[in-house]
Amino acid sequence: MTEKVRVGVIGTGMIGQDHTRRIQQVLTGAKVVALNDYAPDAAEKVRASLAPEAQVFEGAEDLIASDNVDAVLVCSTGSTHEAFVLGAIAAGKPCFCEKPLATTAVGAKRIVDAEVAHGSRLVQVGFMRRYDPGYIALKEVVDSEIGQPLMVHAAHRNQTVPAQYVTPMAIHDTLIHEIDVFRWLLNDDYVSAQVIFPRATSKKHANLKDPQIVLLETSKGIRIDVEVFVNCQYGYDIQCQVVGEEGLAYLPEPMSITKRKNATLQNTILTDWKDRFIASYDFELQDFIKAASNGTAAGPSSWDGYVAAITSDACVKAQESGAIVPISLPDRPALYN
Amino acid sequence: MTEKVRVGVIGTGMIGQDHTRRIQQVLTGAKVVALNDYAPDAAEKVRASLAPEAQVFEGAEDLIASDNVDAVLVCSTGSTHEAFVLGAIAAGKPCFCEKPLATTAVGAKRIVDAEVAHGSRLVQVGFMRRYDPGYIALKEVVDSEIGQPLMVHAAHRNQTVPAQYVTPMAIHDTLIHEIDVFRWLLNDDYVSAQVIFPRATSKKHANLKDPQIVLLETSKGIRIDVEVFVNCQYGYDIQCQVVGEEGLAYLPEPMSITKRKNATLQNTILTDWKDRFIASYDFELQDFIKAASNGTAAGPSSWDGYVAAITSDACVKAQESGAIVPISLPDRPALYN
Amino acid sequence: MTEKVRVGVIGTGMIGQDHTRRIQQVLTGAKVVALNDYAPDAAEKVRASLAPEAQVFEGAEDLIASDNVDAVLVCSTGSTHEAFVLGAIAAGKPCFCEKPLATTAVGAKRIVDAEVAHGSRLVQVGFMRRYDPGYIALKEVVDSEIGQPLMVHAAHRNQTVPAQYVTPMAIHDTLIHEIDVFRWLLNDDYVSAQVIFPRATSKKHANLKDPQIVLLETSKGIRIDVEVFVNCQYGYDIQCQVVGEEGLAYLPEPMSITKRKNATLQNTILTDWKDRFIASYDFELQDFIKAASNGTAAGPSSWDGYVAAITSDACVKAQESGAIVPISLPDRPALYN
Amino acid sequence: MTEKVRVGVIGTGMIGQDHTRRIQQVLTGAKVVALNDYAPDAAEKVRASLAPEAQVFEGAEDLIASDNVDAVLVCSTGSTHEAFVLGAIAAGKPCFCEKPLATTAVGAKRIVDAEVAHGSRLVQVGFMRRYDPGYIALKEVVDSEIGQPLMVHAAHRNQTVPAQYVTPMAIHDTLIHEIDVFRWLLNDDYVSAQVIFPRATSKKHANLKDPQIVLLETSKGIRIDVEVFVNCQYGYDIQCQVVGEEGLAYLPEPMSITKRKNATLQNTILTDWKDRFIASYDFELQDFIKAASNGTAAGPSSWDGYVAAITSDACVKAQESGAIVPISLPDRPALYN
Repeated sequence: MTEKVRVGVIGTGMIGQDHTRRIQQVLTGAKVVALNDYAPDAAEKVRASLAPEAQVFEGAEDLIASDNVDAVLVCSTGSTHEAFVLGAIAAGKPCFCEKPLATTAVGAKRIVDAEVAHGSRLVQVGFMRRYDPGYIALKEVVDSEIGQPLMVHAAHRNQTVPAQYVTPMAIHDTLIHEIDVFRWLLNDDYVSAQVIFPRATSKKHANLKDPQIVLLETSKGIRIDVEVFVNCQYGYDIQCQVVGEEGLAYLPEPMSITKRKNATLQNTILTDWKDRFIASYDFELQDFIKAASNGTAAGPSSWDGYVAAITSDACVKAQESGAIVPISLPDRPALYN
Repeated sequence: MTEKVRVGVIGTGMIGQDHTRRIQQVLTGAKVVALNDYAPDAAEKVRASLAPEAQVFEGAEDLIASDNVDAVLVCSTGSTHEAFVLGAIAAGKPCFCEKPLATTAVGAKRIVDAEVAHGSRLVQVGFMRRYDPGYIALKEVVDSEIGQPLMVHAAHRNQTVPAQYVTPMAIHDTLIHEIDVFRWLLNDDYVSAQVIFPRATSKKHANLKDPQIVLLETSKGIRIDVEVFVNCQYGYDIQCQVVGEEGLAYLPEPMSITKRKNATLQNTILTDWKDRFIASYDFELQDFIKAASNGTAAGPSSWDGYVAAITSDACVKAQESGAIVPISLPDRPALYN
Repeated sequence: MTEKVRVGVIGTGMIGQDHTRRIQQVLTGAKVVALNDYAPDAAEKVRASLAPEAQVFEGAEDLIASDNVDAVLVCSTGSTHEAFVLGAIAAGKPCFCEKPLATTAVGAKRIVDAEVAHGSRLVQVGFMRRYDPGYIALKEVVDSEIGQPLMVHAAHRNQTVPAQYVTPMAIHDTLIHEIDVFRWLLNDDYVSAQVIFPRATSKKHANLKDPQIVLLETSKGIRIDVEVFVNCQYGYDIQCQVVGEEGLAYLPEPMSITKRKNATLQNTILTDWKDRFIASYDFELQDFIKAASNGTAAGPSSWDGYVAAITSDACVKAQESGAIVPISLPDRPALYN
Repeated sequence: MTEKVRVGVIGTGMIGQDHTRRIQQVLTGAKVVALNDYAPDAAEKVRASLAPEAQVFEGAEDLIASDNVDAVLVCSTGSTHEAFVLGAIAAGKPCFCEKPLATTAVGAKRIVDAEVAHGSRLVQVGFMRRYDPGYIALKEVVDSEIGQPLMVHAAHRNQTVPAQYVTPMAIHDTLIHEIDVFRWLLNDDYVSAQVIFPRATSKKHANLKDPQIVLLETSKGIRIDVEVFVNCQYGYDIQCQVVGEEGLAYLPEPMSITKRKNATLQNTILTDWKDRFIASYDFELQDFIKAASNGTAAGPSSWDGYVAAITSDACVKAQESGAIVPISLPDRPALYN
């Protein structure tokens, strides 16, 4: 990695700004040379504070096309992802795309098709949990110490969500992380989904069914139950236990100081989701830089983004129908094996 | 409790013998004065070793009728329970009956009807988990500290089961404990059951689907998922967590010594179910003795036994059909309010 | 155990009353037939509420002498223990004596001598921790799983103590429990004591040095450090870890419900010492009854009480001098092997 | 940080090589431009594999003097540290020095004097524990949540040590980390040391007393006990609990996967010390680079290295004498306030 990868960042909101800081101050092997935002002032502000030598582009297309840009980060609003990722593929440039890869499965499919036509991987999707040291350690144990996995019991809990968070967002914005990470953890795909609505918490908003239990079945018959509870009040809490033929393995709790105080033996639970997988953002982007320096991409692929979209759609259908919804996937292109 | 309750024990197999020992050596306020077994030698043996002053009866009916017997323990084989409990009710004597109260819901209903006709409680069913200090402490927390309960995630795992253990026994012999204890814990009744069969462990016998996940819904909408995994290999393990509107509460692990040894921070997990709720047997029987000394019964009732039978039947139907099976109960007689 | 042991209770304060309740309502094999208190009204009250068939004696000596009394419980104020225990030995009656056995080592020695002269054990001292299921489980592990014990790290913490609690009481009233239980746990005796006074908590009273660290050395060279901290504010907390050649073992925490609530993963810590070893009181007294029914005594002996007194005296001397104080014991009479 | 700090590495053994890798591949803001080792082939090898653009210097003095070198890493054998650090100070270049700063307190004092004469900080000592996320989180809690600290109970355990490890190395090579990190954690200095030798493990070598308990007293009266047990057999284990006026706080265990398996609830304990504080090496060196880019140094200072040397010497004296050894420090130069 003698030469630094020259990165162009599209979208300089919270996450774009954070990735820029990461590349400039924390990670190695890359520098931000180009910035774009639909609000040019925002891009200019980020340039001034974090990347003074970068160029601000008025149009994202121009940034993608620039000869100074080796690789692209798509951090703009979700509805624009598909076009920018397709643009990067057309330009033959490695592209890191935040979730979602596209707002529809059909759109994600177009990206897969373009990448397959290109003939090598260029896209990494921002499923950062695969880079979490806890999940990585869990996967090692699941792969080697507890026999064949049979079941996963999981929970995704937020302290509260704002009023605009409605029932299907429990899938698209929340469960989406479990959908991806369990495919990776189990090396398996889903074949059906069912959603159960328990007694609703009184702490929820009017347009939200909360909590929900999502039941997923994989092609190997592994059964996954995920409690999604986004107004659980007590904290941001990600739980996962894998039951294998010979034993169980648990996702670790985040590090915290055990205390004895006020008649209580206690550990703090996080309340802000941004703190939970904070190290993973560094690791995923470092991995992107490493692959981009070789003109390719690693980690979660377009195919993973596409399958997540198909699975999400099935879960929303299961929310609406109350029925068990089958999930079927097209054949996996050889590029993604 | 100035006079000891004079107890007659029907059935002197493992559990009858153990209850006899309990009354003679551990508990207070009772003595075993009568013993009966379909194999008179067995009863005689127990008499000789544990209750030398007791009388061995050839017929259970004679034991029940004896003027020397104040209260009856039914510890014989399951198919005989109904007749002996009905006999005790007819004699107006308090009666402790091991699980099951009867082998059919219809049989259990006959006992409920007889007890209602009698006009006061006489029967306690041997659902000992209600007397477990762990469940009792959990109930206190659920009732006061975590808001309205919304979900229960539970597991009932045995290390292994013998070859004669077949699929419906996962309900009748295993889940039966959860069926009862969650009604008590949540102060609620079930309205539906569903059973899911995950990928089967390779460690199971040919005639058993293992593991199973049983989904129960209560009248308040609380959703319960119970993993029943009877060849889990690693130990006998009972897990239960209750998710409320404001927090979670967990059933405690049994006491064990934490060790650092062999590069492992470790606690022993029990392997023998008999050790798990060992104190509860003392407590349930002491409670029976206390109530019996006043000519009545407390704790799990005939009604509880009857409802457990109805619920079990629905779960077995759900095993067979794969469908969501509704559970409907007759009105609860005032005696059991 | 066909006939009940007839027990006479001397001293009907809190502990005498509690032991009376225990014998009458919880334990098996004994009944309280005689009561005495220096305040006869107090004895009468206990009789009326807990042992209506018992006789109230004006003099403790008369109670001890009564033909109706098989065994004696000494629960009166500490300064009277020696005389009453000597009286019971003279009468040849099993005697359970609350801590301390005597207020001086010399007094305890007189009891040992009397019992040795009697020729068989009659006295059990109320060191209830030896009956705690946690310590018993710890001892099993220490004896078999971690190699030769080398060190013990322990803590004895009270939430607060009243103003009359002064520095030496940290030994006589608090450490006394560790002094006895570690001799039993390690099967060893002490050879020296040292006391260190860390920075004092601001929450203490004027006449108390708090916390203290007591360093004990055993004849095998095992080193024990005990933090005694009696105004620790957060709870009543007994900690003990044994370091062996091959591993560590920890005294278990008391059972409590793990909760997730208010951004905290938490367990309750006890605040009242009476709750900590509550089951042990039942077990120690049941053991006394069992031995008394055979005319003897088991559990912690007069010798143990005498050694505890010698060790306590050395610890107080170490408090005063700041020096390492040697501890030497007379030869152990064969009766106590 | 627009220009990279140009680093020269003296000593290319295990740690020098690892720091070179860190700077070249993991950290940001620096590059290795110069390498030196007393075995030039070793330096050449590291250059070839990790820093192809660096220059290999035959003499460390030449490396320090080179105009291409902005900052120096001293990773050579301990006896050479003093001379190279003095050289870097003379050259006015920031210098990161692995433990020990010097092999004697007198030597460390010479470095302090030189740095004070220079007038600003240039030296960081490699006490990496101050950068461990666990200790940092512990310090936050100690500073804000448990009241004034009164005691620290700690343990430093190695699975085994080689035959050349002798008794004083328990101080110089092992306790040295606790000596530094507790000064930082408590913001305090030591006033006395005592060493106790418990019963020795049979697993030790002939020339080693193992385990040892080191008792340290601080100027505020805080009492620290550290068990040093370097053949504990079960793993590499660093324990620390701080007892404050209002509560306790514990150093977290390293992340590991909780498993249920083989009748055991278990977590893996590390066995290799290199894995325990692995992230801290990155953080300490990144901090050095950041300060060096401004021509100065941060983190553990020469003064800290000097005080650690004085304290170590006292502890070794305490090992030899068995007595309580007073520790007195010269006045702290203003530079280190």
